[in-house]
Amino acid sequence: MIDLQEYRNEFEKFSQNQTFSQGPDNLNAPIRYIMGIPGKRIRPVLCLMATRFFGGDLSETLPIAYAVELFHNFSLVHDDIMDEAPLRRGFETVHLKYGLNSGILSGDAMQIYVYDYILNAGFSMEVTQSLLRTFTKTAIEVCEGQQMDIDFEKEDDVTEKAYLEMIDKKTAALLWASLSMGSIPFVEKEKADTLGKFGRNLGMAFQLRDDYLDTFGSSEHIGKQVGGDIIQGKKTLLYIWTLSQLEPAESSWLKKIYSENALPDDQKVQQVKDLFIKYGADKEILARIAAFERQSEENLLELEREGFDTRGFSQLSDYLMNRVS
Amino acid sequence: MIDLQEYRNEFEKFSQNQTFSQGPDNLNAPIRYIMGIPGKRIRPVLCLMATRFFGGDLSETLPIAYAVELFHNFSLVHDDIMDEAPLRRGFETVHLKYGLNSGILSGDAMQIYVYDYILNAGFSMEVTQSLLRTFTKTAIEVCEGQQMDIDFEKEDDVTEKAYLEMIDKKTAALLWASLSMGSIPFVEKEKADTLGKFGRNLGMAFQLRDDYLDTFGSSEHIGKQVGGDIIQGKKTLLYIWTLSQLEPAESSWLKKIYSENALPDDQKVQQVKDLFIKYGADKEILARIAAFERQSEENLLELEREGFDTRGFSQLSDYLMNRVS
Repeated sequence: MIDLQEYRNEFEKFSQNQTFSQGPDNLNAPIRYIMGIPGKRIRPVLCLMATRFFGGDLSETLPIAYAVELFHNFSLVHDDIMDEAPLRRGFETVHLKYGLNSGILSGDAMQIYVYDYILNAGFSMEVTQSLLRTFTKTAIEVCEGQQMDIDFEKEDDVTEKAYLEMIDKKTAALLWASLSMGSIPFVEKEKADTLGKFGRNLGMAFQLRDDYLDTFGSSEHIGKQVGGDIIQGKKTLLYIWTLSQLEPAESSWLKKIYSENALPDDQKVQQVKDLFIKYGADKEILARIAAFERQSEENLLELEREGFDTRGFSQLSDYLMNRVS
Repeated sequence: MIDLQEYRNEFEKFSQNQTFSQGPDNLNAPIRYIMGIPGKRIRPVLCLMATRFFGGDLSETLPIAYAVELFHNFSLVHDDIMDEAPLRRGFETVHLKYGLNSGILSGDAMQIYVYDYILNAGFSMEVTQSLLRTFTKTAIEVCEGQQMDIDFEKEDDVTEKAYLEMIDKKTAALLWASLSMGSIPFVEKEKADTLGKFGRNLGMAFQLRDDYLDTFGSSEHIGKQVGGDIIQGKKTLLYIWTLSQLEPAESSWLKKIYSENALPDDQKVQQVKDLFIKYGADKEILARIAAFERQSEENLLELEREGFDTRGFSQLSDYLMNRVS
């Protein structure tokens, strides 16, 4: 059985030594704070797993794993400002704890530090350049995904294609990059990319499952109120797909009830859920999830055929996809 | 005579071809907007001048000059949010025109695009890595300088040393980087650095002169209200230095009158100015400016001795330091 804790421990050990003690402490304290909030550390774990998978030593890519987590946390800090979120993984968000300006500026510094870690990870110029290109491409995608997510709030007719592109860029791209960057120093670009694609497909499946459970999970399993997306009027795939199936009259009704909060929350959730089920949106999204999972398995099979033992990644996939069922 | 307009024209021509047409337009429109606001383009001009100075062709470093200006504009967008500034060079600030979230996110994307331009400028890996290191080091300094500037607002006893470090990081460092990055592809690190230091010293002189003129300039020359820094209670070197000369009683009086707005603006400005003059702060800051100018001339002399014709940079220096007199 894969020992996720080993990877996490290696990461946390490295992380604790990153003290950010140079320069003004008001710039660094928020970085230490957000990086210190406990989390699953999926991205660094993926990066380190990839390294070992391709025969590298974890110590070599710890700065890369750290850089990836730093970027992820930068995006959380700035996203939380944009979403006016009070809590992040149960902790006060950076801009609430330290103020808006610190949230913006510390996030900016984190983004630069990502490059600093990659540049100083000790790899050859060729590997470093490849890591930097992979990261930069991904970071632009993450910004684009976040912008699309913001845009969707005001758009009336978000397509399934646009929605999938948004979660691909906002979430899946960084999982791809985590695996790719953990692989690049040790293996040819093509294999690194195949493993990266596994992460990308897994990321899509994971994000869609998150959406599914928000509406169809049980509150004890998801640890938050069921139907939160519906209450907030979030344009998830469940909503987008259902809308695409409706006649104009029913479509107008759904748009209205979904965007407004005229009904009490529980009634709004129930009525929208009923409509989702009536048109089979639940089954439809489960089929999408299954398709992304199959694709991710295909990516692993491709590596199996080249002689790699991919069981660790299968187990990680099971762990991520079944942690709430 | 040096033809600044030629460098500017080259830059603007390149700039106009950067359409930012990939990805969501709500992310890109603010980038096009801020980059399109007319300005002196000091940083790209420095970068391009350095290139020609060391025998390179302007076309080679245009992407680098653009990257530097992009970073400068990113910092303006985020600083304007932090300062709640309504106007930038006479135009509406990005966060007012497009909203806070767009200001944050477009700024983030600009920071990443800086790296994208450097990575794709077409230089060897060695040169590229050197450019990336120079830029990254500088970008961290700029964030630190901005944090120090924010911190000073709440600090009671800002030292002269701390103030000089702040303007060095916030302003002078990027002038250093502009010249260094324009030089690096064409000359050994040491010479690039000497030219960079010229820019750094010039930047310090320029920033201190800005502070001086804010209090002692004439409004027609500086194009804004004289005494703005005093009215806002900004801890400039004039204030810091005067404070260091005072006995406790007078020091308390200055701190009080400076931080509060109990007096009408014109009276506050007059009383503080009188105190500055009484203790010779005006002469003191002029001496500091002259010292930085002398150092910048020394840097040019060093290059002269190695056979370079530095007249263009002397002229640029005159232009920058005398544009308002």
